[in-house]
Amino acid sequence: MADSGLLIVVSGPSGAGKGTICDALRARFPQVHYSISMTTRPPRPGEKEGVNYYFTDTAHFEALLAQDAFLEYAKVYDHYYGTPKQYVYDALARGEHVLLEIDIQGAMQVRKHYPQCLCVYIVPPNRQVLAARLHGRHTDSEEVIAGRLQKTQAELAWMKEYDYVIVNDRLAAAIEQMEAIIRAEACRCARNGNTLSRICAAYQE
Amino acid sequence: MADSGLLIVVSGPSGAGKGTICDALRARFPQVHYSISMTTRPPRPGEKEGVNYYFTDTAHFEALLAQDAFLEYAKVYDHYYGTPKQYVYDALARGEHVLLEIDIQGAMQVRKHYPQCLCVYIVPPNRQVLAARLHGRHTDSEEVIAGRLQKTQAELAWMKEYDYVIVNDRLAAAIEQMEAIIRAEACRCARNGNTLSRICAAYQE
Repeated sequence: MADSGLLIVVSGPSGAGKGTICDALRARFPQVHYSISMTTRPPRPGEKEGVNYYFTDTAHFEALLAQDAFLEYAKVYDHYYGTPKQYVYDALARGEHVLLEIDIQGAMQVRKHYPQCLCVYIVPPNRQVLAARLHGRHTDSEEVIAGRLQKTQAELAWMKEYDYVIVNDRLAAAIEQMEAIIRAEACRCARNGNTLSRICAAYQE
Repeated sequence: MADSGLLIVVSGPSGAGKGTICDALRARFPQVHYSISMTTRPPRPGEKEGVNYYFTDTAHFEALLAQDAFLEYAKVYDHYYGTPKQYVYDALARGEHVLLEIDIQGAMQVRKHYPQCLCVYIVPPNRQVLAARLHGRHTDSEEVIAGRLQKTQAELAWMKEYDYVIVNDRLAAAIEQMEAIIRAEACRCARNGNTLSRICAAYQE
């Protein structure tokens, strides 16, 4: 039997490069998948059930909540968003790695439910670099950018709760670090009970 | 201030490829150094003080032992061999990584003195591969090889005490895994208190 895949929780400020790094990781490791959230908000044009989200209604979501069926969830305005345990656990059992891009509150909820998850915090090297990236995207107003910078400063106190920190100074180096983390964790003894047993058996023969 | 370097403890049966993997690692990371042991056995022709060993006499070695000055030590026949803490700790404080190729008993002693060390066990995939490698070296008698195989089988029960296991099936892949472990551990939050503080400060400016 193969050992369980890795549940990789990735957090960091907007503009840290999380999406780019996670996409690169998926391209390099075919066994890495994004987790799909469940939400009660209606689908937007083009969004597909089971691809972008699992869409459901509030009654069903709350029934699942009562069954403790989520790794993490949040209510944003009137809508619920959550990560169903079942889909993630099924993928991990198949030996696949699951990527969860999520905020700090979500990450800490996931860790409570699944302590062996791998929490990675991605952060630009300093405030100036983050500000430059947010300006460069041309998507946020000055006010929104100022808000993001302030929020990031407050959030950094949580970095030490993560397993790994990647300082995204040069993108190629950050991707390499993320890749190294996955490769290294895949040979951690604590995660490889079945592999260790298999090796022991291979020396009895 | 830089964070401390890594103390990398490498164990595994003779013929596992430890030396080759460690040499490759040194070639790729200039900040990786081999630890130098202290011994009471006399130098052999060509051996140099401070390069192959630190040579000393029994009285001095035992005085150091009484001061708990070794990360690990063993007495083999009439001679002591040990890893002096001071040299290792000085190198780690300079941010260098120190490699220690050592047996299981030694590794467990090191872990007791320095729990944040990184213990890596390197093992060929099965008994047949190990036997073939030992035969291929043409250095050991049939009897010695049989003894090594039996010892390895007994030692594998200790694998789970290590942080990482590298199954050395293909050398290039094993070297990559070792490299990934070093790169990953270098961005572990628990090892990077100073780096985390520096990032926090870089967001205050």
